[in-house]
Amino acid sequence: MNNTIKDIISASIQTKQQILNDEAFIQKMQTVVDVIADAFKQGNKVLFCGNGGSAADAQHLAAEFSGRFYKDRKALPAEALHCNTSYLTAVANDYSFDVVYARLIDGLGMNGDVLIGLSTSGNSGNIVKAFEKAREKGVITVGFTGATGGKMKDVSDYLFNVPSTDTPRIQESHILIGHIICQLVEEKLFPGPR
Amino acid sequence: MNNTIKDIISASIQTKQQILNDEAFIQKMQTVVDVIADAFKQGNKVLFCGNGGSAADAQHLAAEFSGRFYKDRKALPAEALHCNTSYLTAVANDYSFDVVYARLIDGLGMNGDVLIGLSTSGNSGNIVKAFEKAREKGVITVGFTGATGGKMKDVSDYLFNVPSTDTPRIQESHILIGHIICQLVEEKLFPGPR
Ligand SMILES: O=P(O)(O)OC[C@@H](O)[C@H]1O[C@H](O)[C@@H](O)[C@@H](O)[C@@H]1O
Ligand SMILES: O=P(O)(O)OC[C@@H](O)[C@H]1O[C@H](O)[C@@H](O)[C@@H](O)[C@@H]1O
Repeated sequence: MNNTIKDIISASIQTKQQILNDEAFIQKMQTVVDVIADAFKQGNKVLFCGNGGSAADAQHLAAEFSGRFYKDRKALPAEALHCNTSYLTAVANDYSFDVVYARLIDGLGMNGDVLIGLSTSGNSGNIVKAFEKAREKGVITVGFTGATGGKMKDVSDYLFNVPSTDTPRIQESHILIGHIICQLVEEKLFPGPR
Repeated sequence: MNNTIKDIISASIQTKQQILNDEAFIQKMQTVVDVIADAFKQGNKVLFCGNGGSAADAQHLAAEFSGRFYKDRKALPAEALHCNTSYLTAVANDYSFDVVYARLIDGLGMNGDVLIGLSTSGNSGNIVKAFEKAREKGVITVGFTGATGGKMKDVSDYLFNVPSTDTPRIQESHILIGHIICQLVEEKLFPGPR
């Protein structure tokens, strides 16, 4: 068991090390920080969606904006799309689970908003549909996926395709990338000491 | 911005590297895997609690057990204590936010259950109170904290005090440790290929 544990930790480190060595990936983080900071400045909001562990990660990252990250500052408009479980069960039951996020984008999404979708495979149907709807509505799409990008590759304005095909390792890098973006957006919008 | 991003990734890697080098920490993961697998085998359940990003992480890890991790197998009894938001708002409103988790442990906790509390400071009042109640009821307590362990140190049967004092870096290691435990518990209870 000891060796399995060490192998998992090493794989988690290795995935992050690959990101660290990838200048284009890091450059894209800077670009997305600017995109999100500009959206907030213009009065737009940032929405997150995912399924399973990635729903939890979506909620985690939304709370860093709407709650706080490092700084005691005003709330930023951010939400994870699965959080209204009454809505989620209603629409999955009455329509289809595939449209739960697309329908919310149709109802809530405004031109200039940002939608961040987290899917390790890049193939979760409800996220792909939400991204398609987002593009119709002028909502900027940011995909957090695994190495291939899956179907989300073609509907993402910006794609963070973590260099791994192993679900938990991908998620561990998603939360790191999300933390980095939250910190830098917070620093841009609220300069000065913590 | 480029250097800040690289520094954050390096710090995240560094924290995990320290865990990888800490034999006692890894040994404790093995012990907790055995504790949780035994609890499930005996018909007990595993409960998670946290606040903010750590509530999301609690929910993420609970879903790995109740949903699935790598394997197509039966559901395991696990839940995150903040998920019933009607309960949460009622008890916070009528009693106090400090008792939201302790009250659920009082209502749901059974001798032999396991409570995993995630708090980067180790000082969140509702988690400390839940751990105290857990101990009264024979519920095994597992703390996921930052370096000091905070107040949770004294009420945790097992403590994973991640060697960092920086909230996001601690959370990034919590989810890794949780993933490792989920994988190994799943392998113990459901041997055979994925
Ligand atoms: O391909 P994804 O969109 O990441 O979807 C995977 C999720 O449905 C969940 O699958 C399993 O239940 C687990 O691996 C979860 O961690 C994962 O989020
Ligand atoms: O000390 P903790 O129990 O980890 O509590 C911290 C939380 O209340 C949250 O605080 C801020 O909102 C952010 O740092 C969150 O990520 C964190 O979970």
